[in-house]
Amino acid sequence: MTQTPHAALNAALHPSLHAALPSLESGLFGRLRRDAAGEWASYVQHRFVRGLGDGTLPLACFKRFLVQDYLYLLQYARACAMAVVKADTLDDMRAAAGTVSGLVLSELGLHLAYCRDWGLDEAALEATSPSLETLAYGGFIMDRANAGDLLDLTVALSACLAGYAEVGLTLLADPATRRDGNPYWSWIETYSGPVYTCLAEAGIVRLNALSERRGGGARYAMLLRDFRTTVRLEAGFWSGAMRDE
Amino acid sequence: MTQTPHAALNAALHPSLHAALPSLESGLFGRLRRDAAGEWASYVQHRFVRGLGDGTLPLACFKRFLVQDYLYLLQYARACAMAVVKADTLDDMRAAAGTVSGLVLSELGLHLAYCRDWGLDEAALEATSPSLETLAYGGFIMDRANAGDLLDLTVALSACLAGYAEVGLTLLADPATRRDGNPYWSWIETYSGPVYTCLAEAGIVRLNALSERRGGGARYAMLLRDFRTTVRLEAGFWSGAMRDE
Amino acid sequence: MTQTPHAALNAALHPSLHAALPSLESGLFGRLRRDAAGEWASYVQHRFVRGLGDGTLPLACFKRFLVQDYLYLLQYARACAMAVVKADTLDDMRAAAGTVSGLVLSELGLHLAYCRDWGLDEAALEATSPSLETLAYGGFIMDRANAGDLLDLTVALSACLAGYAEVGLTLLADPATRRDGNPYWSWIETYSGPVYTCLAEAGIVRLNALSERRGGGARYAMLLRDFRTTVRLEAGFWSGAMRDE
Amino acid sequence: MTQTPHAALNAALHPSLHAALPSLESGLFGRLRRDAAGEWASYVQHRFVRGLGDGTLPLACFKRFLVQDYLYLLQYARACAMAVVKADTLDDMRAAAGTVSGLVLSELGLHLAYCRDWGLDEAALEATSPSLETLAYGGFIMDRANAGDLLDLTVALSACLAGYAEVGLTLLADPATRRDGNPYWSWIETYSGPVYTCLAEAGIVRLNALSERRGGGARYAMLLRDFRTTVRLEAGFWSGAMRDE
Repeated sequence: MTQTPHAALNAALHPSLHAALPSLESGLFGRLRRDAAGEWASYVQHRFVRGLGDGTLPLACFKRFLVQDYLYLLQYARACAMAVVKADTLDDMRAAAGTVSGLVLSELGLHLAYCRDWGLDEAALEATSPSLETLAYGGFIMDRANAGDLLDLTVALSACLAGYAEVGLTLLADPATRRDGNPYWSWIETYSGPVYTCLAEAGIVRLNALSERRGGGARYAMLLRDFRTTVRLEAGFWSGAMRDE
Repeated sequence: MTQTPHAALNAALHPSLHAALPSLESGLFGRLRRDAAGEWASYVQHRFVRGLGDGTLPLACFKRFLVQDYLYLLQYARACAMAVVKADTLDDMRAAAGTVSGLVLSELGLHLAYCRDWGLDEAALEATSPSLETLAYGGFIMDRANAGDLLDLTVALSACLAGYAEVGLTLLADPATRRDGNPYWSWIETYSGPVYTCLAEAGIVRLNALSERRGGGARYAMLLRDFRTTVRLEAGFWSGAMRDE
Repeated sequence: MTQTPHAALNAALHPSLHAALPSLESGLFGRLRRDAAGEWASYVQHRFVRGLGDGTLPLACFKRFLVQDYLYLLQYARACAMAVVKADTLDDMRAAAGTVSGLVLSELGLHLAYCRDWGLDEAALEATSPSLETLAYGGFIMDRANAGDLLDLTVALSACLAGYAEVGLTLLADPATRRDGNPYWSWIETYSGPVYTCLAEAGIVRLNALSERRGGGARYAMLLRDFRTTVRLEAGFWSGAMRDE
Repeated sequence: MTQTPHAALNAALHPSLHAALPSLESGLFGRLRRDAAGEWASYVQHRFVRGLGDGTLPLACFKRFLVQDYLYLLQYARACAMAVVKADTLDDMRAAAGTVSGLVLSELGLHLAYCRDWGLDEAALEATSPSLETLAYGGFIMDRANAGDLLDLTVALSACLAGYAEVGLTLLADPATRRDGNPYWSWIETYSGPVYTCLAEAGIVRLNALSERRGGGARYAMLLRDFRTTVRLEAGFWSGAMRDE
């Protein structure tokens, strides 16, 4: 019996996912995630993800991912800076400013430190060109940041923000995940940990509230089209890191 | 008995206005115009407008207006170029591209020719700094063009587009309007004529359709706030031209 | 003997100004300040500034200024967020992100607290519409932020950043400045104090370095035109607060 | 004897190229083309180009290219609309507005008609998702359009504008090019024809003049970095159309 993508997606849900991300299935984000269930499953259940869980992902793939993830993070931070510009309320402006400073002044440094642990120094990162996948994804979120309003932008960023939490929590709960001797265990801990999952949950709550204020229902068809694109770009990002392996 | 602004606005309506701008009172634009009735009346029934109608506006005021209107037109054209960038559909993209080329390649030239008739050559226009009113209004529409989506932008441009048609048509129908010997008669003819009023009607229809697709109802409070600002800036634009008279 | 504006500007210089802002007269910023000496003097030696110094500025003017300054600060913070987007180097990106978080997460709160000391609560600030001067100035810096590159943007922000430090330090050194019983003394202390003047000096140094990298010399005519506009808008901002007094 | 990329590039030059594009080797553009000679050769001498010339390119590759080229053209037109916004002079504004209307109101229609000749109707084009290559390239030029000034933007567009003319003219002059029975002959005629080559030459002249006014020399390192990226994206665009063949 073949499973529909939607069923496959539901099958992957786990109580710990509901506990840490209670809004994952509600509001605009829940609707987008359901309606792009096939693409979403291809992203959060990607071969790359399974390789992180059981530790079988080739180290070279992970290093390639880390470098491109760093270059993508720079674009993500720029897109968040656009959210400061596009905010309609002081509260949204403060949230966006907090995200920008968190990313640029703290997260980038942590990312660089983590890369160093993997033998990748800042010079190596700077010397690497963005891959086609990174250019496409970074270019797409910046274009939504420029062409649309805060809702278009926040939807474009949501696949990354929420998806990494879902991946982290799913791997944490998965009996197939190896902890001892898994070189990717600290990565899984980061994205399943309370700091990251709280950020992700807060981001989903904020997106759902913004959708109410900015007519998400009436604009749904276009938001879904953009969401699908970002989810495909996420999956492609991982495929890109595994190319030639 | 005092009239409410809304009553004052209705009193000003005229069958010829309905005939040339059938959508003026419908859809999102109709709602914005009604809910900002006080500001709208201060704009379309401004002392400057009455002075155009009966020909009593001092010539120096009109010349000052013409120069600043030219500088504003440049900003308006730039905002329309942003509409090409922000369009979601090929049809909207084509409409915006047509407006940009119409404004930059044709309208600017007509405006310059009209200014020359008033003794203002291009060098004089270039040498004049934008007034505070022009900077404020031009800056505001460009900011909406950058911070919002196509609906925010189109609302910000609508007060100018529709208001000038309403002014032109109202003056045309007003028995107080002088035709013979009125130095402003050709201006009134332009804005009450079929070319301009068709553009204005098409713009209102486009705005109302866009509002359906981009959640105008849910976003109404913020759209009204921006619309009020642009209407006040329009009235201020005319007040600025009459300063010191 | 009449003084040229440039002489008037030099006459205002003071050793304490050189000590706290050693780069004020060097590089691109020094050249802009010299070449716009007339406008600059009208700004930093404005009647409003003298009224702050000797305490004779009507309280109502200052309160009006405080409210508009708060609304302007929101635009300034948005423009700084654009600097995160436009940065070419990680170092510039970090500096801009630090400024955004400093402004939005800390400075706005301090500003609100200071306003409360003057009897202006947040609700009053939110309820006030931006004045024509605030719309014009905020709109102009956001437009430079969108239309230009990081150098255009940084020039547009420099008149505010450096000018307030010059005003603060000049007032601090001016024997005509009253300290005891001057309601504006704490304002003068803030803008002549080490925290603010260090920020201003660092901003000038950064602008001058950026000018080297982004062809400031070749682009000087246009940068000067924009700089003059912002300096005039600064002076107008103070005039606006004194209207009807 | 191994040829340097530069020598390879020079070897490809032909008198007809000089005649139709006299500015190809001068000014900022000439310098960029020389300094990115390796990437440039990989682009203009791509296997796809040779396949156009001798008619051996599989039809399926060309159709895939046509569809993606249409989707890219939409992004190119949006980037040109940003040039209207970013223009410093009325002349640049007019040139950009002319390009936008030429692209959106005329070129898109011609492209659609040409696609129909190849059995690709508008519905098929609309239904196709942009490839990774198209997203990456379109996203990159839009990002330069937003983050930089008019010079950054014009450099980002120059590889496409000038490169297609060089390709067309080189194929026209190449004895290996087949005319009779070559299904790509009309494509070659278009890009080697006087209409397109005049546009390309005018674009190079405009870029070189803009570089003088906006400090292209001082900014050269960053302009070259962006130019290299666009040239690589051009080559990748053709490789993408040939994938799996």
